[in-house]
Amino acid sequence: MNETIQLLLNHVSVRKFKDQKLTKEQIDLLLKSAQAASSASHEQAYSIIEVTDPEIRKQLVEPCGGQEWTTQGHYFVFCGDFYRHQKLAKKYDTDIQDSLDSIDTLVKGVVDATLAAQNFIIAAESMGLGICVIGGVRDGIETVDKLLQLPDHVYPVFGLIVGYPDERNDSKPRLPQNAIYHQNTYETNKEEALKEYDEIIRAYYKKRNKDRTWSKSTTEAFSKYPRLYMKKYLQRKGWAKK
Amino acid sequence: MNETIQLLLNHVSVRKFKDQKLTKEQIDLLLKSAQAASSASHEQAYSIIEVTDPEIRKQLVEPCGGQEWTTQGHYFVFCGDFYRHQKLAKKYDTDIQDSLDSIDTLVKGVVDATLAAQNFIIAAESMGLGICVIGGVRDGIETVDKLLQLPDHVYPVFGLIVGYPDERNDSKPRLPQNAIYHQNTYETNKEEALKEYDEIIRAYYKKRNKDRTWSKSTTEAFSKYPRLYMKKYLQRKGWAKK
Repeated sequence: MNETIQLLLNHVSVRKFKDQKLTKEQIDLLLKSAQAASSASHEQAYSIIEVTDPEIRKQLVEPCGGQEWTTQGHYFVFCGDFYRHQKLAKKYDTDIQDSLDSIDTLVKGVVDATLAAQNFIIAAESMGLGICVIGGVRDGIETVDKLLQLPDHVYPVFGLIVGYPDERNDSKPRLPQNAIYHQNTYETNKEEALKEYDEIIRAYYKKRNKDRTWSKSTTEAFSKYPRLYMKKYLQRKGWAKK
Repeated sequence: MNETIQLLLNHVSVRKFKDQKLTKEQIDLLLKSAQAASSASHEQAYSIIEVTDPEIRKQLVEPCGGQEWTTQGHYFVFCGDFYRHQKLAKKYDTDIQDSLDSIDTLVKGVVDATLAAQNFIIAAESMGLGICVIGGVRDGIETVDKLLQLPDHVYPVFGLIVGYPDERNDSKPRLPQNAIYHQNTYETNKEEALKEYDEIIRAYYKKRNKDRTWSKSTTEAFSKYPRLYMKKYLQRKGWAKK
């Protein structure tokens, strides 16, 4: 197993960081790594906003999931971004309205931002840094939108905290390979793999004095935060109208 | 610069592969690497379908962008997947309908599939393999849906061809860092960076006897394929209804 795969397999989310800042050179290299990822038709439909202002960072905490430790390390927000494309369309007098309106364009923006982000994450971890993805940015989307002054066609997909880890958790077991892997056609009967996984997760949490399975806890968590405000927000900002 | 970052920066899309298959061990390691990526609330809302049947692969070519070479190497389809979650919800008699219906759940599925895919890609490249992302899967989404027998709540985000490269292109220059990077608030005035980039891309294509800038060619390409059938497809399959 090579060094890079070892690194990928060692990934854990970090939620406690040292009070040590990254250098400009490090951030440049993370951005360069992010940009090296594939993007749909070379559209490069994403932007990365670093929040360096401590005041803004404080104001993001509560609306974005209330995780106090998100003021630590560095904070980057990965956005799907067709702002520059719509501006260019005006310049070239090209009609891109259907493309801007299409829900497929939302998918494109999310894909481009996420491919770039995962490269950024791998590069950071290869430097000995730790990261945590903050999906909570979509809980506080109106606050994020306002504080970061996002124009139309810029959609904040998630935040990313990056810094020197002060504490590392154990890696949480993943679903058995058989549960997520299919050949040729989608196999709907994966009950056995999920049962097997529930026992693995039960053992994992037992060590942490909790009684929990993946099936039940994920189902309950998933039911709770449907983020039904999202459609209105997206459409107001020019996404997924059609 | 460490080995992993060097690998990320060396990424190019490969569109010609040798007639050499991956071993089961290699595929296992790629899947394991994919699964090691972060996922929203540990929901692991994705599936990976490998298309090994040559007949199905042939039938995917035309509808998915008509790229003949996509019958080479190995073919994986990365899907956002809440099929297992909705099945579990029935088992536990938990109401997750709002969550299934929410457009945010589409975003979650696309993010989870894409984080996993980028890890898969990096792992493949670290083994000396080449890859190409096939967004064209969304051109042929009805065919993909039918051939892979996708149930509701499984959304094919993109395909991925993986194999031993027989030909490697040069890396295509990316947007200047300043065009995609912002601090604290979104900076709408990036015209200078785009102008600079157009000259870089013009020089890149001049060597290939083409006269092309990014701004104009991307705008034109973006206008052409709005995929307006996507909303209907998604909603029929239980996504983004609210």
